[in-house]
Amino acid sequence: MSALLSGCITLTTDFGTRDPYVGIMKSCILRRFAAATVIDLTHEIAPFRPEEAGFWLGVSAPLFPAGSVHVAVVDPGVGTERALLLVRSQQQLFLAPDNGLLGFIMQSWPDAIALRIETQALRELGIEPRSATFHGRDILAPLAAELAAGRCKPESLGPVLVSIQPGKLAPASCNSAGVVTGSIATIDRYGNLLTTIDARMLESMRAPVVTFRNQRLEVLRTYGATAVGNALALINAFGRLEIAVASGSAVRSLGADWGEVVQVKDEAPLP
Amino acid sequence: MSALLSGCITLTTDFGTRDPYVGIMKSCILRRFAAATVIDLTHEIAPFRPEEAGFWLGVSAPLFPAGSVHVAVVDPGVGTERALLLVRSQQQLFLAPDNGLLGFIMQSWPDAIALRIETQALRELGIEPRSATFHGRDILAPLAAELAAGRCKPESLGPVLVSIQPGKLAPASCNSAGVVTGSIATIDRYGNLLTTIDARMLESMRAPVVTFRNQRLEVLRTYGATAVGNALALINAFGRLEIAVASGSAVRSLGADWGEVVQVKDEAPLP
Amino acid sequence: MSALLSGCITLTTDFGTRDPYVGIMKSCILRRFAAATVIDLTHEIAPFRPEEAGFWLGVSAPLFPAGSVHVAVVDPGVGTERALLLVRSQQQLFLAPDNGLLGFIMQSWPDAIALRIETQALRELGIEPRSATFHGRDILAPLAAELAAGRCKPESLGPVLVSIQPGKLAPASCNSAGVVTGSIATIDRYGNLLTTIDARMLESMRAPVVTFRNQRLEVLRTYGATAVGNALALINAFGRLEIAVASGSAVRSLGADWGEVVQVKDEAPLP
Repeated sequence: MSALLSGCITLTTDFGTRDPYVGIMKSCILRRFAAATVIDLTHEIAPFRPEEAGFWLGVSAPLFPAGSVHVAVVDPGVGTERALLLVRSQQQLFLAPDNGLLGFIMQSWPDAIALRIETQALRELGIEPRSATFHGRDILAPLAAELAAGRCKPESLGPVLVSIQPGKLAPASCNSAGVVTGSIATIDRYGNLLTTIDARMLESMRAPVVTFRNQRLEVLRTYGATAVGNALALINAFGRLEIAVASGSAVRSLGADWGEVVQVKDEAPLP
Repeated sequence: MSALLSGCITLTTDFGTRDPYVGIMKSCILRRFAAATVIDLTHEIAPFRPEEAGFWLGVSAPLFPAGSVHVAVVDPGVGTERALLLVRSQQQLFLAPDNGLLGFIMQSWPDAIALRIETQALRELGIEPRSATFHGRDILAPLAAELAAGRCKPESLGPVLVSIQPGKLAPASCNSAGVVTGSIATIDRYGNLLTTIDARMLESMRAPVVTFRNQRLEVLRTYGATAVGNALALINAFGRLEIAVASGSAVRSLGADWGEVVQVKDEAPLP
Repeated sequence: MSALLSGCITLTTDFGTRDPYVGIMKSCILRRFAAATVIDLTHEIAPFRPEEAGFWLGVSAPLFPAGSVHVAVVDPGVGTERALLLVRSQQQLFLAPDNGLLGFIMQSWPDAIALRIETQALRELGIEPRSATFHGRDILAPLAAELAAGRCKPESLGPVLVSIQPGKLAPASCNSAGVVTGSIATIDRYGNLLTTIDARMLESMRAPVVTFRNQRLEVLRTYGATAVGNALALINAFGRLEIAVASGSAVRSLGADWGEVVQVKDEAPLP
């Protein structure tokens, strides 16, 4: 596995920012690795939707310096027997509970490898859970520090797994008729609907048309390419299909449930 | 232009903190300049009010180390033909779209110089927009990294402009009768009304009295200098006139619209 | 006093994150100590409850590297004659107004020493209040920078105090019948009720039972150790008694006021 080091650690949680839980995780990183650069991705993941954290990591992590360590704590099962995982892909490391959070990354990136983090390996690093309820602080933060500091080899942490919990968010698929089916992966603060559909799946289409909640949407270039209030689809800054409303909120105008199906069909396919 | 370097970059946006958009901007800074110190100013600017970002930058930026780079992304016109600007003033650099955001700084600081950032200059730095919708990530973040790292001279980025979009927030003015007229520049979380009126404009007044929404307010020293619930004016920590309510909220007690007029008159002028 | 240095400074305030006040404090740290690592603990303390900041500092600060400097600004009395304090304990330094904020730490930690920060000592460091309303920026931020950089000895700042403002939050106590009485110190975003009761006070109990609002709660190991919707008590990740509802919100299910009494009794004491 990679020996690349960036010193960079990102945090993605459902902790919010009202309580000092995020700052406390940082204290446990800095105690072991004072030179770490710690970046908050988001602390507003819905507590019972770890898959949303995995989606955001999937679109964000490749932008970080090679060798960055991404810690995700959306962990309703903390204190139960769920495993902790290390996933390596795209020269990035991911640490999270095995509860579906990293399923999207495992299914999306062919080079992804998952390890189960073993208690014994943690013990050798001096990492022991001091609580039953805050493994983000007790285990994942200090482990991220050791990895980011280059003092611990990922492959030493435990066995490679053949499969992990897949989670409720699958990559989009294409059927034999050329129809691409994906789903709503997250809804951002502007009310835009980010889907799992990768732009590369639409590259060969000559006239892609999006179907969502009985809407028929063309794929435009920017939010401003239609009149204010109109719904549209576009390829967003992450190379994914997104449904939006010009100068408005798609979730308010169209409605949308997390995980809901979105389809794309080519209306002018090559014969 | 200045060769001062602080390694410090600030971010001011309308992105909120629910989605990872701010963390993603930081990834693009760190990939180019790992030693940057990135400071969040605020990510809660009203999306269609870039002028508010400019006001906060005007009061905040002079406090940062000389050579800091301030990135502001409130950019409803992203993907259209609006220009991107670099403004230099007070040994600070500012990067933002040309949509009124930097108008207040240009009008307030006599030493301010604006450049239009040219596509060709960006290309020479290896900066190309990879999306039509997230120029904060694709252009301004990497450019801030290059500037803060000292690898790019501001004057190499494009031509000096004679004028930029002024925006809806002008510096306060004084008429021939000595009456100072300004406006509400922002309303903070405590409900205080921060105005554009610089304390130096009131220095020669012997008995300044503030008029706002039919209130007649004296200029006191601190929030606690009148009884709880009373409205007051004071010179705030940024050297600006502010309207407040002791242990209360001015916006709730008095009401206030963004941009609304505030006046100050000397009731005991020297004869 | 300690000469340990970590370069680490934490911030705890009631400023929120909507306005740039926190970023502005950081600018004043970085201007004096560019290499500081600044960590946000929380900026959502209730403005008129400095004791809550002190409680969170008490549970968080010991996790930070030795020699860290913790700045707390919940300061409704800014601009009045209240003193500013430096407290040293557990190899950590705390800076805050003398308004009850640091009372809990002073009463909880036997090694805690408090000093009153003198205007003259600040002046020798080039620190002078430039405003009557933002001493966090004008005094505490630059002083934290000087302390964290090791350029200022804590004991040079002013006289040791025999007592400080105690605040409304006292450590839990145990009566002659063995009943432990504490109170609700804070309510987190999940609706969990964090109490002042230290787990060590319950160590000798064989069957501790918690009484709160006519509920009789057993002390379980994790949130998941009872059926969904049930109230429970547990020892949390900070070694304190906490009242929670499994997969729910204790504050919504049971109600709770800040400061309300919580008791623990041993129902099977050794004879």
